Amino acid sequence: MTDDRRYVLLLGCPDRTGIVARISAFLAEQGGWIVEAAYHADPDSGWFFTRQAVRASSIAVGIDELRERFADVAAELGPKTEWALHDSGERQRVVLLVSKDAHCLHDLLGRAAGGELPATVSAVVGNHPDLAPVADAHGIEFHHVPFARDPAERGPSFDKVRDIVDAHAPQAVVLARFMQVLPGELCEHWAGKAINIHHSFLPSFVGARPYHQAFARGVKLIGATCHYVTAELDAGPIIEQDVIRVDHSDEIRDMVRQGRDIEKLVLSRGLRWHLEARVLVHGRKTVVFT
Amino acid sequence: MTDDRRYVLLLGCPDRTGIVARISAFLAEQGGWIVEAAYHADPDSGWFFTRQAVRASSIAVGIDELRERFADVAAELGPKTEWALHDSGERQRVVLLVSKDAHCLHDLLGRAAGGELPATVSAVVGNHPDLAPVADAHGIEFHHVPFARDPAERGPSFDKVRDIVDAHAPQAVVLARFMQVLPGELCEHWAGKAINIHHSFLPSFVGARPYHQAFARGVKLIGATCHYVTAELDAGPIIEQDVIRVDHSDEIRDMVRQGRDIEKLVLSRGLRWHLEARVLVHGRKTVVFT
Amino acid sequence: MTDDRRYVLLLGCPDRTGIVARISAFLAEQGGWIVEAAYHADPDSGWFFTRQAVRASSIAVGIDELRERFADVAAELGPKTEWALHDSGERQRVVLLVSKDAHCLHDLLGRAAGGELPATVSAVVGNHPDLAPVADAHGIEFHHVPFARDPAERGPSFDKVRDIVDAHAPQAVVLARFMQVLPGELCEHWAGKAINIHHSFLPSFVGARPYHQAFARGVKLIGATCHYVTAELDAGPIIEQDVIRVDHSDEIRDMVRQGRDIEKLVLSRGLRWHLEARVLVHGRKTVVFT
Amino acid sequence: MTDDRRYVLLLGCPDRTGIVARISAFLAEQGGWIVEAAYHADPDSGWFFTRQAVRASSIAVGIDELRERFADVAAELGPKTEWALHDSGERQRVVLLVSKDAHCLHDLLGRAAGGELPATVSAVVGNHPDLAPVADAHGIEFHHVPFARDPAERGPSFDKVRDIVDAHAPQAVVLARFMQVLPGELCEHWAGKAINIHHSFLPSFVGARPYHQAFARGVKLIGATCHYVTAELDAGPIIEQDVIRVDHSDEIRDMVRQGRDIEKLVLSRGLRWHLEARVLVHGRKTVVFT
Repeated sequence: MTDDRRYVLLLGCPDRTGIVARISAFLAEQGGWIVEAAYHADPDSGWFFTRQAVRASSIAVGIDELRERFADVAAELGPKTEWALHDSGERQRVVLLVSKDAHCLHDLLGRAAGGELPATVSAVVGNHPDLAPVADAHGIEFHHVPFARDPAERGPSFDKVRDIVDAHAPQAVVLARFMQVLPGELCEHWAGKAINIHHSFLPSFVGARPYHQAFARGVKLIGATCHYVTAELDAGPIIEQDVIRVDHSDEIRDMVRQGRDIEKLVLSRGLRWHLEARVLVHGRKTVVFT
Repeated sequence: MTDDRRYVLLLGCPDRTGIVARISAFLAEQGGWIVEAAYHADPDSGWFFTRQAVRASSIAVGIDELRERFADVAAELGPKTEWALHDSGERQRVVLLVSKDAHCLHDLLGRAAGGELPATVSAVVGNHPDLAPVADAHGIEFHHVPFARDPAERGPSFDKVRDIVDAHAPQAVVLARFMQVLPGELCEHWAGKAINIHHSFLPSFVGARPYHQAFARGVKLIGATCHYVTAELDAGPIIEQDVIRVDHSDEIRDMVRQGRDIEKLVLSRGLRWHLEARVLVHGRKTVVFT
Repeated sequence: MTDDRRYVLLLGCPDRTGIVARISAFLAEQGGWIVEAAYHADPDSGWFFTRQAVRASSIAVGIDELRERFADVAAELGPKTEWALHDSGERQRVVLLVSKDAHCLHDLLGRAAGGELPATVSAVVGNHPDLAPVADAHGIEFHHVPFARDPAERGPSFDKVRDIVDAHAPQAVVLARFMQVLPGELCEHWAGKAINIHHSFLPSFVGARPYHQAFARGVKLIGATCHYVTAELDAGPIIEQDVIRVDHSDEIRDMVRQGRDIEKLVLSRGLRWHLEARVLVHGRKTVVFT
Repeated sequence: MTDDRRYVLLLGCPDRTGIVARISAFLAEQGGWIVEAAYHADPDSGWFFTRQAVRASSIAVGIDELRERFADVAAELGPKTEWALHDSGERQRVVLLVSKDAHCLHDLLGRAAGGELPATVSAVVGNHPDLAPVADAHGIEFHHVPFARDPAERGPSFDKVRDIVDAHAPQAVVLARFMQVLPGELCEHWAGKAINIHHSFLPSFVGARPYHQAFARGVKLIGATCHYVTAELDAGPIIEQDVIRVDHSDEIRDMVRQGRDIEKLVLSRGLRWHLEARVLVHGRKTVVFT
């Protein structure tokens, strides 16, 4: 309980023999007591991925020094190696983008308050003012940024959202049922940290009103998908998905109500994994070490 | 146990008040002891659906006489009324169309042998001879009907399959991982009794090699869909669907292996519900009274 | 949307032929437009159960007059018949009993605020003061009733809780992770409306610290159970249950965190079904028409 | 596809720093190309567990030589270290114990035939002759060993079963709905390789007729549990569990039918994991690296 701080290494590199040995030898030299370790070798792309968590108390040096030392190991693993060393003791920041639907906002704020998310919610931004009271009740700043009806005139609003978000330098920007499609340059700017919840089991029912699409098709399960935002709509790397059973007696509003539970679960799981440094993006896909 | 025979009424008609009263009054007049009854009113289409199962032993007249008597009630409910009176004591027949994958065949024959399906498997037709021994082991006739490489030349093969199937006058024609796309006229000919298992969670991953598509997209759940066959590929009314969790460590062959379990479950459930007169088709969708 | 008010008949009586006909004839006479109807015949106990929902707008008389008229029908069905006619237009009241765990309280208040529960939360009673701010933020009265350490001396506290609850005459008293075992007489007093959430898949792990028990046993799924409170601990009729997968890497605190999601889902579903008059208790079991 | 042979190290030892480094250094020295690796540290017992799979083709020496070399490493990790080096190229043997229920037998033989289990089914032993034809159809020897009515007189039968099983020196003895409780000494004799499927979600409904118990209690989910057999009835370390939803309309025979699907899934998964050297037993619990 009192020894919960972790240093977490997240790494991807071209696969070959000896990688595990090299990394674990390094960690052992530093005195690192490994509490979680996971590997994945992708035979298709020939890539290797790992996540290793050590007790911070078992390492003599600080996180910055550790990063510096590990840089040499990473260099040995080749120029394409991508890695990060995460310190669970550093409190992270999240900014939430919302519209009118309250359930994901309620859920995330409740979880943050209960200590379930390793992050502080720094701000909430809404394209409508409706959810300001929910943020207020939690003592979190709320920004109302109106959006033009005409999609061609929404540029200034997106600029304003970008400025508000970036002022907090968050580790995650969560589109918690934000109903605006981010412009490509903003997707690029927040690459790897903008997280969306889409209320269908993607790739089914891309775009608007997925429950209406699901109802029309007569599917027997509805779902939700948490994914990183990319320029292609609802096509970013998937972090988490889940489904719930429906039947012919469920009207669209029943699907909306039941779907909310799945959206909340899927978004909160995906966000927590992101914040705990459990997710690696590789091409269109993710490796999630849970 | 000894009083298991049921007469099952399946009916759809335009919704209005008094339908339940009219039908239940009729059944009460015949002495019908209702053991299962289900209703559904679809506010979108303004249609009403019901399924009612009574103990055959509680009805004095035979099923043919009962059908004749009920025809008058159905007429009162309007000219668009569609209905059927099913006698669970009449053993049904199923013909299976297969290719090389054995798991659905094994599963259905095992269930039929164990009394789980209220039907006899009359014949198995394969576009390859590989599964003949499986049918043989169960003492069921197997027909090998070769198919030309060129889709344009497959007409005679489909004609032959049609003749074999129709000779058994089956209540269900099951495409148990049959890898041929039925021509439109055959879909029409077997409308409402040709049942397919598609190895994805439709409408995701229509067409060929859905597990490959799922792998490429990086979904976190894979699924299977049991649906009636219509002329539009993989777009018929869905009877049942289910999913199973996968992750980054699952290669395509792992998906294939895990997916088989879902295919077997979904197909066997969908087929059983069809045979137990639990499924009503309405437009592109189904009402399934389970 | 504007025609959502329903009169809901919930009835249980000894099974015989003609019950459905009698009830539906009655409803048809009143002009009742049935939108949902469900039946269940239990061959073991020889009992028949039904739930029928009609549009209030289709009935000419008021709910009290309708109750009076139906009483004659019920009398025909025998002296053991139990029934209720519920008016979805009458707003219901719920009182929540809590302790220190906030997640179920947050969840239920969020759902009530979002219109997901057909009820008003009238009051929250805690044996600790910790959750007062959560109730305050929603503008709901909070009562702190301290409990003695010695179980033998808790009588006066239970009396006080009883008085607070009864002053609101609620349709449901929800033990939302309330950590006190209700005395038998209070169970009796609130029979059929006191609803508890137990954080295990009952009947496994009755009593205290079920996650610790689950961890010690090494189960691969953990669950939660929503049930009516009876004098026998954790043995009342089960309304709803669900589970979530765990594995060897999940410590007790992981189970606690993951279990919360299941507790919230199961409790909110069970409570909603209770408030929508979907649950009939029969002996140790429930019939739930969903 | 052509390089599928694996050497798999399974190891448990008291936890300390440097274990991963020591093992991975050893594997790297042998040229081992790691394709799967998993770790678990149990803070409660202070124990460390790992499973590492390397391509057999990447190791210059044979499995026996590799075992000999690794013994020195294991010795360094302390005298309590338990380990095994498994060669996926060595075909394993399974003996099945059955009674009258055919579904698990059908399922396992079908999977074995389809290449889904890395094992040969060497023999089937039944306390009734009923399932002999199923074994025959697969060309597998069947032994009928009658059991006395009086439990006190079953010793000779168990001795005979033991002799038949041991003659095959199997890696797994599967109680595939075998209805006899193994005597303690046989549990001991087959410790760690006798695998049972129990048709409930343990620890609920231990012992006989669990579906009847589930029906009487009114649970909303039924399940199955695959576990190692120990002298205490239905209390051995759990390998896998799963559940399926039921409701008030499901009679016992419906539970039996639906439960079969879960039994088959759970048993086949548990057995496959056992045969793929994915399961470590520690006290009453298992570590399962999937």
